[in-house]
Amino acid sequence: MSSFLDKRFASLEAYVPGEQPKDAKYIKLNTNESPYPPSPAVAEAARAEAEKLNLYCDPDCTLLRREAAALFGVGEENVLAFNGSDEVLEFAFMAYGAKIAFPSISYGFYPVFARLFGSDALKVPLREDMSIDHRDYLSLGRTVVIANPNAPTGLALSPGQIEEIVRSNSGSVVVIDEAYVDFGAESVIPLTKKYDNLLVTRTFSKSHSLAGARLGFGIAGEEIIRDLNTIRNSTNPYNVNRMTQAAGTAAIRDNELYMSRCRAVARTRDRIADELKKAGFELTASKANFLFVRGGGLSGEEIYSGLRKRGVLVRWFSGGAISDRVRVSVGTEEQMDVFLAELKELQNEKK
Amino acid sequence: MSSFLDKRFASLEAYVPGEQPKDAKYIKLNTNESPYPPSPAVAEAARAEAEKLNLYCDPDCTLLRREAAALFGVGEENVLAFNGSDEVLEFAFMAYGAKIAFPSISYGFYPVFARLFGSDALKVPLREDMSIDHRDYLSLGRTVVIANPNAPTGLALSPGQIEEIVRSNSGSVVVIDEAYVDFGAESVIPLTKKYDNLLVTRTFSKSHSLAGARLGFGIAGEEIIRDLNTIRNSTNPYNVNRMTQAAGTAAIRDNELYMSRCRAVARTRDRIADELKKAGFELTASKANFLFVRGGGLSGEEIYSGLRKRGVLVRWFSGGAISDRVRVSVGTEEQMDVFLAELKELQNEKK
Repeated sequence: MSSFLDKRFASLEAYVPGEQPKDAKYIKLNTNESPYPPSPAVAEAARAEAEKLNLYCDPDCTLLRREAAALFGVGEENVLAFNGSDEVLEFAFMAYGAKIAFPSISYGFYPVFARLFGSDALKVPLREDMSIDHRDYLSLGRTVVIANPNAPTGLALSPGQIEEIVRSNSGSVVVIDEAYVDFGAESVIPLTKKYDNLLVTRTFSKSHSLAGARLGFGIAGEEIIRDLNTIRNSTNPYNVNRMTQAAGTAAIRDNELYMSRCRAVARTRDRIADELKKAGFELTASKANFLFVRGGGLSGEEIYSGLRKRGVLVRWFSGGAISDRVRVSVGTEEQMDVFLAELKELQNEKK
Repeated sequence: MSSFLDKRFASLEAYVPGEQPKDAKYIKLNTNESPYPPSPAVAEAARAEAEKLNLYCDPDCTLLRREAAALFGVGEENVLAFNGSDEVLEFAFMAYGAKIAFPSISYGFYPVFARLFGSDALKVPLREDMSIDHRDYLSLGRTVVIANPNAPTGLALSPGQIEEIVRSNSGSVVVIDEAYVDFGAESVIPLTKKYDNLLVTRTFSKSHSLAGARLGFGIAGEEIIRDLNTIRNSTNPYNVNRMTQAAGTAAIRDNELYMSRCRAVARTRDRIADELKKAGFELTASKANFLFVRGGGLSGEEIYSGLRKRGVLVRWFSGGAISDRVRVSVGTEEQMDVFLAELKELQNEKK
């Protein structure tokens, strides 16, 4: 850091995203992307905007928000678009994060945002089986952030459990990060009509093949949306570029295709999970587009670096409470068969 | 605002961007966009990425930064890419803005950022002729932000004057916002090699026909760049999407085309300025891609709303110290001829 940097950032430790290798020779199962390219209509919609880039994008994302409102079953005044869901999560920490609570093992960005904004952050431990005990979050009297399904465990709470959290913290905002909900958990977006303290965040990075376009949403009652819009207009009103607005709009119109792909990913996930269990690995019951794996006679590091040498990238969170595990994004059937075969070979080598 | 919003944001007044009409029937001279579409290679580069959107973008913007470093004549370790220059300006206020100074009349986002981050902000008045007196910024002992050329006046400081500011504030960061520099002012990027407290920001929205793609840069010594990268990685490491990275890279390779367009805009600007003076209007000596106009027997509001009715949008900053003026982006020769003819008709109607 420079000598000029505000002292409150002196100990800031940035989020470390998964590797994005440039040689592209790997089967990439490390950043929870969709293995499928965007649908032709989406690519075409983005392309059509490329010739109009001299003009600013619509700061209100009018068309995109209209489609998103219909998709999520809420009013247009209940949804905002962001430069990835990281941006809406950042704004939520900025707006509501003075006192905040989130699981001790969850999306790695939560503690980064907490440090950035100097939050008083309560990190709530998981149960021994890696699940969230929703009762730990009842009547906390502080802003709550929970990924549902949680990452990197893939374990989900039920809407009823989340409603208990929301109801018992009526004086604080509850943020439910539904980045992975389309792969098998149940959304609590309907509850945003009943509770003015619930903010649901979504991303199109995983379920809608738009990781490289950067598109996320915030869904909530009108007052929270107004807060977030004030923050958005105080930082970057043109936050979602022209091509991404068009791509997102087209992706929503193709939503059934994307949902069928999500179901395919979920089927592949469950098949591979069964195979891994047969091979002696231990897994959480993931409802997301990734598996969270340990055991089989291998350490987390051995799985990560062994697979890397064999051309398969998975995510290993070194040095912490989950360093005995790896997170494996669910790719195509073919990619996962390669992953499985290589992992079993690693196991045999070790024996 | 909701009852949940952090009290320090209670009086936040967001930036109000210029109108982005959706019916597109206007000659749009209100947001300083380039009147020319991106070059074919740029549109093609963005298009080619549309099919790979399921994969995250390169968080390091490796190719784009390599080209940008060559363009700006600095090392790759001296440049970062951002989601518009608004993002790097925001981060500069966050990182260095506890005590800050900027001109009382300048880019409307500076006071918004200052309020967002609770800065102790000194707003330094302009001279009566709307110019910045650089001596007002010597040895201030606080972070300094100056747009050069300034907006909406278009008036520029010389590199020597800026160097005096930078040298006399060696314990604080000096941010020079060069959004409009390519239209006739002189860049101080070379000074970033000599002074570790100088940050230069650039945008491709105006000079490079990429307003709708969102692309800006920060150029500075390695330490400031490291600070900004820590903030970037603590908010949104994938801040510049895949299509925009490709578009920006291609735009730099076409830089000579864009610079010749900037020169054409400057010629049009000077021709129209002469015509306006002949018609009795008063103008600042703008070095940017806009004119700052008053007089001719018309109030700022009369010019703005009269032209609007006639299908020409210009920017009017109502209710403040400059409400007697309008800012007119310089479009094509043909657009500006229409603007001039309509403005003269307005004048005649009033007489």
